[in-house]
Amino acid sequence: MTKTPVAVLGATGAVGQRFVSLLADHPWFEVAALVASDRSVGKPYADAAPWIPDGAIPAACASMKVEGVPSLTSPEKTPIVFSGLPGGAAGPVESDLARRGFKVFTNARDHRMDADVPLLIPEVNADHLDLVKRQQGPGWIVANGNCTAIILTLPLAALHRAIGVEELHVTSMQALSGAGAAAVAALDVTDNILPHIAGEEEKLSTEPTKTLGRLEGDGVVPEPIPIHATCTRVGVREGHFESVHLRLKRPATLDEVRQRVAEFRGPPGVQGLPSAPKMPIHVLDAPDRPQPRRDREAERGMAVSVGRLRLDPDGRGLRFVVLGSNTVRGAAGQSILNAEYARAQGFV
Amino acid sequence: MTKTPVAVLGATGAVGQRFVSLLADHPWFEVAALVASDRSVGKPYADAAPWIPDGAIPAACASMKVEGVPSLTSPEKTPIVFSGLPGGAAGPVESDLARRGFKVFTNARDHRMDADVPLLIPEVNADHLDLVKRQQGPGWIVANGNCTAIILTLPLAALHRAIGVEELHVTSMQALSGAGAAAVAALDVTDNILPHIAGEEEKLSTEPTKTLGRLEGDGVVPEPIPIHATCTRVGVREGHFESVHLRLKRPATLDEVRQRVAEFRGPPGVQGLPSAPKMPIHVLDAPDRPQPRRDREAERGMAVSVGRLRLDPDGRGLRFVVLGSNTVRGAAGQSILNAEYARAQGFV
Amino acid sequence: MTKTPVAVLGATGAVGQRFVSLLADHPWFEVAALVASDRSVGKPYADAAPWIPDGAIPAACASMKVEGVPSLTSPEKTPIVFSGLPGGAAGPVESDLARRGFKVFTNARDHRMDADVPLLIPEVNADHLDLVKRQQGPGWIVANGNCTAIILTLPLAALHRAIGVEELHVTSMQALSGAGAAAVAALDVTDNILPHIAGEEEKLSTEPTKTLGRLEGDGVVPEPIPIHATCTRVGVREGHFESVHLRLKRPATLDEVRQRVAEFRGPPGVQGLPSAPKMPIHVLDAPDRPQPRRDREAERGMAVSVGRLRLDPDGRGLRFVVLGSNTVRGAAGQSILNAEYARAQGFV
Amino acid sequence: MTKTPVAVLGATGAVGQRFVSLLADHPWFEVAALVASDRSVGKPYADAAPWIPDGAIPAACASMKVEGVPSLTSPEKTPIVFSGLPGGAAGPVESDLARRGFKVFTNARDHRMDADVPLLIPEVNADHLDLVKRQQGPGWIVANGNCTAIILTLPLAALHRAIGVEELHVTSMQALSGAGAAAVAALDVTDNILPHIAGEEEKLSTEPTKTLGRLEGDGVVPEPIPIHATCTRVGVREGHFESVHLRLKRPATLDEVRQRVAEFRGPPGVQGLPSAPKMPIHVLDAPDRPQPRRDREAERGMAVSVGRLRLDPDGRGLRFVVLGSNTVRGAAGQSILNAEYARAQGFV
Repeated sequence: MTKTPVAVLGATGAVGQRFVSLLADHPWFEVAALVASDRSVGKPYADAAPWIPDGAIPAACASMKVEGVPSLTSPEKTPIVFSGLPGGAAGPVESDLARRGFKVFTNARDHRMDADVPLLIPEVNADHLDLVKRQQGPGWIVANGNCTAIILTLPLAALHRAIGVEELHVTSMQALSGAGAAAVAALDVTDNILPHIAGEEEKLSTEPTKTLGRLEGDGVVPEPIPIHATCTRVGVREGHFESVHLRLKRPATLDEVRQRVAEFRGPPGVQGLPSAPKMPIHVLDAPDRPQPRRDREAERGMAVSVGRLRLDPDGRGLRFVVLGSNTVRGAAGQSILNAEYARAQGFV
Repeated sequence: MTKTPVAVLGATGAVGQRFVSLLADHPWFEVAALVASDRSVGKPYADAAPWIPDGAIPAACASMKVEGVPSLTSPEKTPIVFSGLPGGAAGPVESDLARRGFKVFTNARDHRMDADVPLLIPEVNADHLDLVKRQQGPGWIVANGNCTAIILTLPLAALHRAIGVEELHVTSMQALSGAGAAAVAALDVTDNILPHIAGEEEKLSTEPTKTLGRLEGDGVVPEPIPIHATCTRVGVREGHFESVHLRLKRPATLDEVRQRVAEFRGPPGVQGLPSAPKMPIHVLDAPDRPQPRRDREAERGMAVSVGRLRLDPDGRGLRFVVLGSNTVRGAAGQSILNAEYARAQGFV
Repeated sequence: MTKTPVAVLGATGAVGQRFVSLLADHPWFEVAALVASDRSVGKPYADAAPWIPDGAIPAACASMKVEGVPSLTSPEKTPIVFSGLPGGAAGPVESDLARRGFKVFTNARDHRMDADVPLLIPEVNADHLDLVKRQQGPGWIVANGNCTAIILTLPLAALHRAIGVEELHVTSMQALSGAGAAAVAALDVTDNILPHIAGEEEKLSTEPTKTLGRLEGDGVVPEPIPIHATCTRVGVREGHFESVHLRLKRPATLDEVRQRVAEFRGPPGVQGLPSAPKMPIHVLDAPDRPQPRRDREAERGMAVSVGRLRLDPDGRGLRFVVLGSNTVRGAAGQSILNAEYARAQGFV
Repeated sequence: MTKTPVAVLGATGAVGQRFVSLLADHPWFEVAALVASDRSVGKPYADAAPWIPDGAIPAACASMKVEGVPSLTSPEKTPIVFSGLPGGAAGPVESDLARRGFKVFTNARDHRMDADVPLLIPEVNADHLDLVKRQQGPGWIVANGNCTAIILTLPLAALHRAIGVEELHVTSMQALSGAGAAAVAALDVTDNILPHIAGEEEKLSTEPTKTLGRLEGDGVVPEPIPIHATCTRVGVREGHFESVHLRLKRPATLDEVRQRVAEFRGPPGVQGLPSAPKMPIHVLDAPDRPQPRRDREAERGMAVSVGRLRLDPDGRGLRFVVLGSNTVRGAAGQSILNAEYARAQGFV
């Protein structure tokens, strides 16, 4: 099987670097173009991108010259474009690339809520991928959700599909790497918590309902689960941690809840994809788990970890915590899994 | 006015040190006995207690000899005993002291839920102090709640009394100082969050309902507000931060909510006490406040800070964060305020 | 005594804010102008400067309108200008202000090594203030050293004047606040150390030798003490910590060394100035002191703390650590002390 | 080749766990006994040892029953004993095991300076292993140095052997994991530095001179290099960082220095051992490296990283920083490498 050449957009930023890091030695994809802003164009990637991920910069990319968006002229050369562009800047660039025939897998927020753009987590809504056929073409855009939303959506999907969720409260404690390379000043989070992340609560309240929604007519009918969110920033490097309190639609036992979450799997076409975790959700029974530092790397960052499952005597009030890698499952890794699924299904 | 001599029990521990620190230069009380375990007895206090609070160890206490519990023989010498003993150890010692005529103001958990022990926050339930008359005497015990519970109870009281609270979800991010001097290992919280604090969620779910309860017959009828809690530990030195999602009993406007919280005051007999804050609850309007480091010292740690007030369109779903000093308002400072109120009311 | 009106340059930055904070309620000076870049001009100071120091923004300054440099037209209105401008930008602005008659006390590096600019620490080289007479006038510039250099210079002066220092090795562990408001990303220092601070080692190797130098002819003959420096950044909010290994010129006893450092005082004209500490150097005998968090506020941040004094059997190899507030004694506080001394000596 | 069965002493502690972690899947050794104190005896290892290292507890060890020292009766069953016992407790236990025929590789301090015990780093002093023949037998003890000392000794050996080192100053910033599982309280190092680690400076001043010493007559003649040390603790999880200022015996160029350090290798019998790094010392040229978080895992923690090489114009004053994994190269990994060398040389 030949590898599909891919371009990484915004390659020098934190998300772009994570794309580059995860695509090193990928069995299906190979990085053929590193695209960034004018400031970096023409420089060797290693010089343009002060390397953030653990481990060394992939050798194959280190000496590649950074290109500008205009150099992306041929969808034959790089049919797939992974976009790590910042929100706001991403929108028009991605639209233009889709119009010119590229298949864009984006981590940016701009197109997430577009009616014809799937907000994809293959384990949850693989069927939404069909939405791309409604885009004008010849290329199209597939989005993944906000990091905090993806991590929440996995256990929510497991519970909602099996038992039903009536309403949900979530408080997040988000990691530094979610804010980009240099965005959170050390002075602000040392011995401190920041009680607000701009725009985050809105995303966390709406995106999961689209991913969990029903494909119908021209788009997705969002699943009507009220999600009430408070998002905070803490001094943890990587791994978003969320405290979830929800109300089930019918009484359940703790055993049933545990089993439904632990046994949650994607459809057959998803299991076995190169980036797909064996178990999307790890259920940890030790009362002091999950913890960001110990559990954020579960299945190379593609599995989320659920712990502290507690059920009210009425069998409906459920509380748990969920942790996931915000830069892998919550961002670049999700995009790559989406592209793997699209390729496996013949969309690419 | 002569100062009332007081004893500090568990004086060498973290809570005990905070008592000593807050009682330095107190206008009504003066430390006359520092009581600790056998290991410390006979040593100068400065040697027995590796000093934790900011600032120097109070000069008047530094050279005092640490005494053992048996040396507390005369309620005339130290009518008031502040107990910073750890839970479990505290119970029988405090009962015995009460039986022997001492007035015990305790921060320990052991007697908090006893039917005849007031769980006192004078701004909220000053009338509960009368409960001590039902104790066997001649002395008695007044308890203050768990740190996380006290900080939550203040805004909850403001809202419940004025508007009514139907149900409440709370996720806490608790500071290191709440775990005692050496209890949380740096290796465990560096770049990490601990998702569980033993016993904390139970306290947070029950104690506020007692403090908000109605004095009746033989004890307190707890206020039936369901409180669902998740308690976590983060790498912040001081200041418990809580994310609160609650449902009001009737629709309100954000202005009304804000005003009710900001204008919350204790009864006249409480305002003006030496440790009473001018405003028990500070409402902060900046979206990035409160923060532990910036706001934990509000009114010398005796005021809590509420921020990020958000109300659903239905006027009933309310979300906010509250922050308070866990070692001052949440522990020793609350005990001292309780004792001040008791003295002002002639109970001591 | 009327207060001297002063202007603060770069008032919205981290150093500028510290100036504003320290000048609140100053007995001799009063802030009459807050000067910053075009971006801030015309805005109320509270809006233009996201407040960093502990405590609230001084009420008298909060609503003052920020001005631009061009509005500083009259040395009669604000004879003293405190400059918190960043290095590079500061140089020409300060020169111009001096030429137009202002007395500039600057924290910036640009003029520090100019032959006719005193690098002033009044306790050490009060006589250097005379250098300003050699400047072209009618105004002039007085500089203070780099934060790390000032903190080192105090104990070095004590030892060099009394015993003589032949050579010195210093390794610094510098705090986040020394890098300006947002310069160090939390991701970079969490669970980490940064082994390099651009330009810092050069300053630390040269500035103390100028401050300790001899006024002669056209300028200062630097004291020929070889200073070998390694400067690192650690995740501490405030307080530069330095490990010093030096060689005395003659053998001494540990008692003598301790006494010389502890009894170091400035000349009579310095003691008693509003910002002058009673003891410029606190010697701590506990083996686990000084620590940044516990000792950085010594004498409101104007005293440095020396600990762990260790002397080789030969009486000449001396090791100790020194800690000081980098934003107070190491920056704005030093500038203000310099201005106090200048005013007391009739230079202003 | 059959694997040699080994016992791990102090298996439930931080160092012991690191032994267990590093010995999982070891090609030459296999853990046959986990030995700990009475408190743990009889428990499954997973229950007795709250697991600290990254990654899961090795499956093969998780269910093994913890044994007591008395159960170590037969050197045939476990000829090699790795000791992770704490200093003080280790001494007599290790002596007794050696007397009974076990080959003990210890990380504890107790026997390090014994005349007939090699303080072994095979890349530096492989010949010292012969010292064990002078022990009474039938078993013997091989020690590795203190973590900070080992990390320093590698570049010191490279420079001293090739150029000569006259005198050395070192300031360490040591990680939390060096203090054992729970020894440093988070409250003590958050926003702070601890300026003293008991006993550490003595070890750092003496141990490298033994390792670098000459085997002669009855023992080792230490290499007379004066080492002046200051040791501090910082809030970094893993990776000791040391700032080194030294004086070469003869002038050199920066190129020569760099080359000597980068090309340092152990003797042929060491290269290729399972735990031996390809390059014991990595020289990093980026001015902002090494950093603990980015470089502590170099060659699975067995290589140290040197950076910021700076040479005075006289060619003799040299400054650099060195970083190494304190729990791998600085402790358990060093012991295992020592045992590998001993086995390869036929000592086991």
